[in-house]
Amino acid sequence: MQGKSRTSITMKDVASRAGVSVGTVSRVINNEKGIKKVTLKKVQEAIEELNYIPDNYARGLKTNKSSNIALIIPTIWHPFFSELAYYVEKELLKNQYKLFICNADGDVKNEIEYIQMLEKNKVDGIIAVTYSDVDKYVSSSLPFVSFDRHFSENVSYVTSENYKGGQMAAEELLNRGAKQLAYIGSTNIHENETKQRELGFCEKLMSMGHSVLKLDMSEPLVEPEKQIEKFLLEHSTIDGIFAINDFMAIKVMKVMEKFGKKAPQDYQIIGFDGLRNAADQTYLLSTIAQPLDKIAQASVKLLLQLISKEKAVLSRVLLPVYFAEGGTTKKIQKSLDKK
Amino acid sequence: MQGKSRTSITMKDVASRAGVSVGTVSRVINNEKGIKKVTLKKVQEAIEELNYIPDNYARGLKTNKSSNIALIIPTIWHPFFSELAYYVEKELLKNQYKLFICNADGDVKNEIEYIQMLEKNKVDGIIAVTYSDVDKYVSSSLPFVSFDRHFSENVSYVTSENYKGGQMAAEELLNRGAKQLAYIGSTNIHENETKQRELGFCEKLMSMGHSVLKLDMSEPLVEPEKQIEKFLLEHSTIDGIFAINDFMAIKVMKVMEKFGKKAPQDYQIIGFDGLRNAADQTYLLSTIAQPLDKIAQASVKLLLQLISKEKAVLSRVLLPVYFAEGGTTKKIQKSLDKK
Repeated sequence: MQGKSRTSITMKDVASRAGVSVGTVSRVINNEKGIKKVTLKKVQEAIEELNYIPDNYARGLKTNKSSNIALIIPTIWHPFFSELAYYVEKELLKNQYKLFICNADGDVKNEIEYIQMLEKNKVDGIIAVTYSDVDKYVSSSLPFVSFDRHFSENVSYVTSENYKGGQMAAEELLNRGAKQLAYIGSTNIHENETKQRELGFCEKLMSMGHSVLKLDMSEPLVEPEKQIEKFLLEHSTIDGIFAINDFMAIKVMKVMEKFGKKAPQDYQIIGFDGLRNAADQTYLLSTIAQPLDKIAQASVKLLLQLISKEKAVLSRVLLPVYFAEGGTTKKIQKSLDKK
Repeated sequence: MQGKSRTSITMKDVASRAGVSVGTVSRVINNEKGIKKVTLKKVQEAIEELNYIPDNYARGLKTNKSSNIALIIPTIWHPFFSELAYYVEKELLKNQYKLFICNADGDVKNEIEYIQMLEKNKVDGIIAVTYSDVDKYVSSSLPFVSFDRHFSENVSYVTSENYKGGQMAAEELLNRGAKQLAYIGSTNIHENETKQRELGFCEKLMSMGHSVLKLDMSEPLVEPEKQIEKFLLEHSTIDGIFAINDFMAIKVMKVMEKFGKKAPQDYQIIGFDGLRNAADQTYLLSTIAQPLDKIAQASVKLLLQLISKEKAVLSRVLLPVYFAEGGTTKKIQKSLDKK
């Protein structure tokens, strides 16, 4: 805990050490063009000698840039969002941006409050995972990228191939010998990308002539375990389940455990999201994984393009999902004739 | 995406609408004292009518306050740190502060780089979970609170009762009938609060006349599963295990599974941390839980006191841990004579 408070050194000190005007120092700090090399060198040396740290407030006033980005998510306390935030922060840091975390806690009021607070604090842009219509609260001058949601109005977004993921889950379960397939999920009143998972799963099965059983609960969920228990009791032949997300799959597995059934020996189950507790941990279960590293990279890239006005406002990025074995599906014997 | 860019409205506009000077508007915005009620009202009305949003850069220059706090952690992609960040953000928001997330990824170089970047950007304070000696890079003028680490120099910190937690683990395992107890953990070259867990556990058992087996691996871990497997094979009578943290406990459980042993029927195991994947999820296993909500509250309170200079620099806060049943320990029959 040493070090002299650096507020004592000002641009004026740098200017007088370098023998130039304060305006010239300011131009150097703001990376303006057309400064003579010899002047540039003098100022840079003075900055180094005095250990002067440019004041970002002053820079913000001048450049109108904060180098701050906000990530609005339902909650950081969730492996999906903490992994997303991890990669977003990594990507931003490469570009000298810092990341604000904003937990909306599933409350649209919080989301709007946060957006208003952020506008006031001049963040350079927002990445939001939100299931409400908050877009009208974002001023058109503030770059905004959404994940996983079609907004009523035109907003740039990044999303995973949810429909394809549903199809993949159907194929993986059939390839592993499941006979009676079922979908277990829930539906929100808001239009939502996750609905595509159910559609992909069911349409794939139907197109192949398979029947599919469905439990579609309405949100907010009321005693989901009881609903799942009733559904599974009524349909005891179910041996292959696709759940709307990994946490729902875990709920299903707990109910199955009550019946003395374990995956993958007694039934198989595939979730969606690809949750892992940390980078060095395994998947919670077999799952259709979203590529969160690529989602973060695409979101940041899109946002920075909007900030620098390289791109028109509207962009859609669709990223591929993949099947990740997590111990709740049987192994497939790789056919030997495929070299 | 509507709304007029609010950069078009300036303090000057507010001043001319209110019929006062720009200086008066500035004083109102910065909550300065001694402004006449009638003037205050005029300015507030003008702000409202024009929908003027004060520029935080300008405010920052004036008040020397950014209302930003940074949380430096090894990684947000870990249920312990994402829960901590969740509660820190909640606590800060109540006080109108925003939270930067900084992943150090276990690299001291990143930690130092982040601290230097943050000094430049004038955050009002830093909360850090770090296992390196970064304190000398933090200038004395920047409020700094640490979690879970004794620094070589004087730094304020918040920590859990690690020693007591170790003692509790010993008691809980004995009370549930475990006979041969073992500790499995790892040691870092840096002085570290987590060592207290091992000490509390072993000293408690020894004071009660019980023997304890120990596997203390050195960090960075090299094939920990193999080391654990060898240890458990050599000591097949072990039926009660205390692991340094929950993730280590999960490693142990995976090795036990290879041997066909399951908790709590074949052995009992207690971790440390109290990890849950999300607010609505259960504990990963039986554990000595750290009160992350209270840790966050205490850290924020301490930091805000340092920022407002209410407190002297040095403070230590020690918070109680508690046993949380998570399905890997047997049930205790509550004695009936204890009403």
